[in-house]
Amino acid sequence: MSDGLWTTNSHMTPLITLTTDFGESAPYVAAMKGVLCSLNPKARLIDLSHAIRPQDIRHVDYFLGSAVRYFPRGTIHLAVVDPGVGGERKPLLVEVGGQFLVGPDNGLFTSAIRTLGSEPRVRHLCEKRFWREEISETFHGRDIFAPVAGHLSLEVDPAEFGPIVNQWIELPTHSAVCWRDKCEGEISFIDDFGNIITNIPKTRVKALPIRVSLAGGAQEHVRWVRTYADAGPGELVCLFSSDGFFEIAIVRGHAAAKLGAAVGTTVELQFG
Amino acid sequence: MSDGLWTTNSHMTPLITLTTDFGESAPYVAAMKGVLCSLNPKARLIDLSHAIRPQDIRHVDYFLGSAVRYFPRGTIHLAVVDPGVGGERKPLLVEVGGQFLVGPDNGLFTSAIRTLGSEPRVRHLCEKRFWREEISETFHGRDIFAPVAGHLSLEVDPAEFGPIVNQWIELPTHSAVCWRDKCEGEISFIDDFGNIITNIPKTRVKALPIRVSLAGGAQEHVRWVRTYADAGPGELVCLFSSDGFFEIAIVRGHAAAKLGAAVGTTVELQFG
Amino acid sequence: MSDGLWTTNSHMTPLITLTTDFGESAPYVAAMKGVLCSLNPKARLIDLSHAIRPQDIRHVDYFLGSAVRYFPRGTIHLAVVDPGVGGERKPLLVEVGGQFLVGPDNGLFTSAIRTLGSEPRVRHLCEKRFWREEISETFHGRDIFAPVAGHLSLEVDPAEFGPIVNQWIELPTHSAVCWRDKCEGEISFIDDFGNIITNIPKTRVKALPIRVSLAGGAQEHVRWVRTYADAGPGELVCLFSSDGFFEIAIVRGHAAAKLGAAVGTTVELQFG
Repeated sequence: MSDGLWTTNSHMTPLITLTTDFGESAPYVAAMKGVLCSLNPKARLIDLSHAIRPQDIRHVDYFLGSAVRYFPRGTIHLAVVDPGVGGERKPLLVEVGGQFLVGPDNGLFTSAIRTLGSEPRVRHLCEKRFWREEISETFHGRDIFAPVAGHLSLEVDPAEFGPIVNQWIELPTHSAVCWRDKCEGEISFIDDFGNIITNIPKTRVKALPIRVSLAGGAQEHVRWVRTYADAGPGELVCLFSSDGFFEIAIVRGHAAAKLGAAVGTTVELQFG
Repeated sequence: MSDGLWTTNSHMTPLITLTTDFGESAPYVAAMKGVLCSLNPKARLIDLSHAIRPQDIRHVDYFLGSAVRYFPRGTIHLAVVDPGVGGERKPLLVEVGGQFLVGPDNGLFTSAIRTLGSEPRVRHLCEKRFWREEISETFHGRDIFAPVAGHLSLEVDPAEFGPIVNQWIELPTHSAVCWRDKCEGEISFIDDFGNIITNIPKTRVKALPIRVSLAGGAQEHVRWVRTYADAGPGELVCLFSSDGFFEIAIVRGHAAAKLGAAVGTTVELQFG
Repeated sequence: MSDGLWTTNSHMTPLITLTTDFGESAPYVAAMKGVLCSLNPKARLIDLSHAIRPQDIRHVDYFLGSAVRYFPRGTIHLAVVDPGVGGERKPLLVEVGGQFLVGPDNGLFTSAIRTLGSEPRVRHLCEKRFWREEISETFHGRDIFAPVAGHLSLEVDPAEFGPIVNQWIELPTHSAVCWRDKCEGEISFIDDFGNIITNIPKTRVKALPIRVSLAGGAQEHVRWVRTYADAGPGELVCLFSSDGFFEIAIVRGHAAAKLGAAVGTTVELQFG
């Protein structure tokens, strides 16, 4: 084919990644893996996360937006965080940047699509011959999305799964706003170390020192470091995250807990 | 062979699933994976769960009973929730419905066997040549079960692992009892969303409206919905679970916490 | 080659294990898996744990020291618990006992090296052609360690990654001290069941009955059992761990919580 995708793919084991909010104590992820293995026992299943916060679309969007870019062409990303299951929301297959995204149309692929390429082909999954025979109202991960990912990994042409659509749900963009010596953004993510990742890009951070204010509170001077090891335990510091955004951390501590920060909290920086 | 099992299997990568209550912070699952990879580096390891509640046989029984049916013929399910390790309980290998179950004889395969087929062949693992050389008293997952699963994935004939037995431990059946306009069952499972899954099958739910009483408490009318998306956030609803049982949920909330429900709590339905 | 390592490896799928303290809710492990799959789509990724306690070098050291010995020759163990990322600490590649360890030079491989062999070849990873093009200051797991593990799985000669070094960081040894009828050691690990594993080896436990004192507290007689099933629920017992060390447990209970024990707490045994 023109973009060489299938040519490449046919020589290698197909990769299917899984990202859900199902946790590990329920049998839901296991059921999806069973469906995938039954359809294509050669597919390689790669767990990305099953610890997305329940029904948190922003969390899974951030997660995929940060992770999928590292995967090779031909990878199939199956993502099921699906509070609207069984309702009006469409099941989707997205081809973008040579990779595939399979999941519900609720915005969870917004950032992944942006990072992977400029011309996504988005399809409405409606060809039921690729689904399980009986479709439950509450578990399309098992009954629609996993079967579609399985068939896709067997090199079924994407066009067979359903027609291209021109509209799909996108999460609102949360861009930082910057002017002269100030920048206003918000917290995009807090990791398990308590590190606070904002949406203020590296390129907008202009001068030292930096004063930081969270949620409209008092400005506080925060020391700039290159990496965590440049500061002592317990020290509040700022630096660039591994994805290139302004980050606030406490060395060997939990910055988010200490500062009472949450995803969406506004962050204001004052430079110089 | 007559049932075509090995014929199929010999053309594909063998699949071994793992289900334990070991958690991820201890090196126990890692040790089992090492043993499996050493015996058969080509076997594909699929994690089902390592977050079964510690020593909770009912939990793992429900989990496997719900999940294993989706896997292909030839799959080997290794399950280690084993409070009786080192004691009298036998190590078992079960062949049923073309799949294999390897684990302790404590009832954890009760539901899996029922869902997979009617004629299980159950063997007492006693051929020590398939075990690790030194057997600890407290970790048969590493020393007996993983080695047996590894050898099995190399197409050792099941008969070689030990003799068929006619008795094995089964958990007591918890069936719902239904008559005219009433049904009495219990809670079989609570998932990470707080959804309450009962043992009352779809076919026994006869008429609307439904009043529900938990643990002998007051009857409460609960609105019937087809899926979560049919109700507003915070609303208490009932519906059918993805496995076809009566379920109680709070949309975008945690029904089990709200209602103080636990596995085993009795559930009484009054129809019409 | 002389030790037959590559000969073996070239006939099989390369295995790469992953051990981190990243948790599952952040996209960090997913990014590393993407990098590995992009470099070598045939490599088999085996999750050991992503639930190492944040930045806890003793935890990951114990974990790997207990687990890696079960893996086959040629396995590549990628371990990233890296509080000093971006600072002075070196990135390392260790060849020992036919296996490979890739991670930061902070002592996390101390026990793994000891259990795998006596003559480790330790290399300083400094050949940047095997790294990602842009190196962040805070995520060498993605930018250095995963790329090196990926290239290694493609059979790049270990010597190409960097020169052999003669010094690397080792954690202090915590050996039990024993004399006549006494033994003094400490707690090395507490698992998810609450079982307390000490550093007192099997061979030093000499006579029954045993009195145990934790953290210098009062001596208490603890009943010796062969395995958990030999005691009743709630009973405090001692036994040998599956790795051959003195262990304290409460049957169907959580010994560590009950006794207020933590890793590093001193344990004194009085025999006879």
